[in-house]
Amino acid sequence: MPSNSSPEPGFARTDFVLPRAPDGSDAVYLAGNSLGAQPRAARTALLAAVDEQWAAVGVAGWEDCGWWATPQRLGDRVGALVGAAPGQVVVGDSTSVQLFGALIAAARLRPGRSVLVSDGGHFPTDRYLAASVARLTGLELRTASPDAMVPDADTAVVAVPAVDFRTGERWDLAAIVERAHEAGAVVLVDLSHAVGVMPVALDALDVDLAVGCTYKYLNGGPGAPAFAYVAARHHDVLDPPLTGWTGHADPFAMTEAWTPAPGVGRLRIGTPPMLSMLALDGALGVFDGPDSPDLAGVRAASLALGDAFLEALPDAADVVTPRAHERRGGHVAVRVRDAEGLCAALARRGVVVDARPPDLLRFGFAAPYVTVDDARTAARELAGLVQ
Amino acid sequence: MPSNSSPEPGFARTDFVLPRAPDGSDAVYLAGNSLGAQPRAARTALLAAVDEQWAAVGVAGWEDCGWWATPQRLGDRVGALVGAAPGQVVVGDSTSVQLFGALIAAARLRPGRSVLVSDGGHFPTDRYLAASVARLTGLELRTASPDAMVPDADTAVVAVPAVDFRTGERWDLAAIVERAHEAGAVVLVDLSHAVGVMPVALDALDVDLAVGCTYKYLNGGPGAPAFAYVAARHHDVLDPPLTGWTGHADPFAMTEAWTPAPGVGRLRIGTPPMLSMLALDGALGVFDGPDSPDLAGVRAASLALGDAFLEALPDAADVVTPRAHERRGGHVAVRVRDAEGLCAALARRGVVVDARPPDLLRFGFAAPYVTVDDARTAARELAGLVQ
Repeated sequence: MPSNSSPEPGFARTDFVLPRAPDGSDAVYLAGNSLGAQPRAARTALLAAVDEQWAAVGVAGWEDCGWWATPQRLGDRVGALVGAAPGQVVVGDSTSVQLFGALIAAARLRPGRSVLVSDGGHFPTDRYLAASVARLTGLELRTASPDAMVPDADTAVVAVPAVDFRTGERWDLAAIVERAHEAGAVVLVDLSHAVGVMPVALDALDVDLAVGCTYKYLNGGPGAPAFAYVAARHHDVLDPPLTGWTGHADPFAMTEAWTPAPGVGRLRIGTPPMLSMLALDGALGVFDGPDSPDLAGVRAASLALGDAFLEALPDAADVVTPRAHERRGGHVAVRVRDAEGLCAALARRGVVVDARPPDLLRFGFAAPYVTVDDARTAARELAGLVQ
Repeated sequence: MPSNSSPEPGFARTDFVLPRAPDGSDAVYLAGNSLGAQPRAARTALLAAVDEQWAAVGVAGWEDCGWWATPQRLGDRVGALVGAAPGQVVVGDSTSVQLFGALIAAARLRPGRSVLVSDGGHFPTDRYLAASVARLTGLELRTASPDAMVPDADTAVVAVPAVDFRTGERWDLAAIVERAHEAGAVVLVDLSHAVGVMPVALDALDVDLAVGCTYKYLNGGPGAPAFAYVAARHHDVLDPPLTGWTGHADPFAMTEAWTPAPGVGRLRIGTPPMLSMLALDGALGVFDGPDSPDLAGVRAASLALGDAFLEALPDAADVVTPRAHERRGGHVAVRVRDAEGLCAALARRGVVVDARPPDLLRFGFAAPYVTVDDARTAARELAGLVQ
């Protein structure tokens, strides 16, 4: 069996720079579900962009350095990580902006319908933007848990995450899509807590639209650009609201009216943030380089880390994440009394995790750089602090 | 007179890395109206962000490195360059996204009114987004030249650029604001072609909202983040559509509904692109460092460059930019027969400018790094090619 089909946890650790613990050693960095550690290749790509491109080439870089094509070139690379055939993903802007555009574009695919159903426990930005879009478009916003949604003939859009940002619960996208499509609704999935830590099969699952971020498990850097997916079957009628000039069919013709670019290119909005994008360009090599394991392997290694963590926890620990592999995302959440205080105390011991109010600690298992020892250390330190 | 109150053109040239001409020397880089050259301090700041912040500190950088506060910290710095007192500007996202949000927020300041008046010659993204916003909000879109707009009692919003992106004509913002306010409308100004090359007095002019980009005369790098200004008098009722989680009053409380942050902070949308933002952080020192000239000085030097260029042009040159200083922006546009061919031919001679279809060449006069010799060389090379 080739080494890259069943990678050990921490298989690419030497390709990363890990944040430092207070004693100067590498931290046990379990915050990759919030901000991934830095791949050395991201730094290399960024420096090349700064020195060999922007500085040396200037404005000609849009053509000569391929900047103009980057949102769709990176889109295809990210697409390959979420089961999307080429030509269905663009990279750019923030997840919030992509969500806003995708929600309206999704609603416009079902013009006769009046309801937007969104996960009641969705990440805040997803909830806030669903409310704003409902207000702008006149849709009625209904909320429900992803496993309890009952789309009906009025439902235009069903908006769900792949993984709950708080509890780490992984939702059954196949069942969600099936129920939505039976009712004639389209499905918009937020992949932020899934992309890069597990396989996602957007095309095979018949998902309609998706968005996600690249600064968590894809390690693109703080505030790295988001991505948006729209299934090819919708491209001909895709009608996005953020009609920026770079999504125009012929942007430099600067014509009177906005003529959408063919296909997913019409989801491009303004001038893309090239420095942030080219850091991501370097970072993606962790997942699609010649020696990279496939995402099934990455997922197996991440689950093994979670298992090692769970096994090392005291029996009394209040784990809110489902233990079953098929229902677990990339992070494990533990309910504690003083989440913020414990988070800070762990950091002082060199264990970096994050806290979500009011009472959750989240431990993220990014397999490329987290080892089984890291997972056990985190459990042991938590146990010591709680006692 | 201190040296920094009347700077020579090219006063900060050694602080920049200029793109290379084909022969390996520094290019005559007159494309700063499209993408500014690279300030050495931008590279320094970016490397510090990559090595000392993201790599070393990880997710704690949002607090420990001040990332979270950056959109408003940079907002105040950009604000100082456009005549805005602190607390009225945020930096982030692209100009297109900021425009979309600002157009809707502006319309909501005048709920009883039905018309959006926008410059018919506005930059394409401004025109395309005005049309999209009109469709979403039900406003009627009317277009006119900024000096011929006649706002009336139905006019909710007047949207204009400070400088025409094609012709380089500088509009009379004071008159535009006065006419709009007399009619009870609010004014949204796109400062993309003005910020960093001339003083702008948003507060003094009573402008209501403004947006702009930072990759032209502010030299923030390709696709550097945009900014948005809203006058403090509107903050209490400011109602933006892009209700991302970072614009929440208490973002980490992750409450059910979106409660806007006090003041301009509610214009924040998603997670900000920190690498691009911190490059801009370094770049801004050109304008607000201890030895920086004020913008009146920068403006005088830029106009001197334009004058030197115009004087060195053949009499027959078809200059479309007004020659009068008060009506001229930062670039000068010349009508030619084959704009793209000439642009390429100039580049082969080491003179970097840009072409705008169908027939314009634009010469940008960014005073920090462009010298009078550069301006004359460009005119001479153009004359040689045209003859």
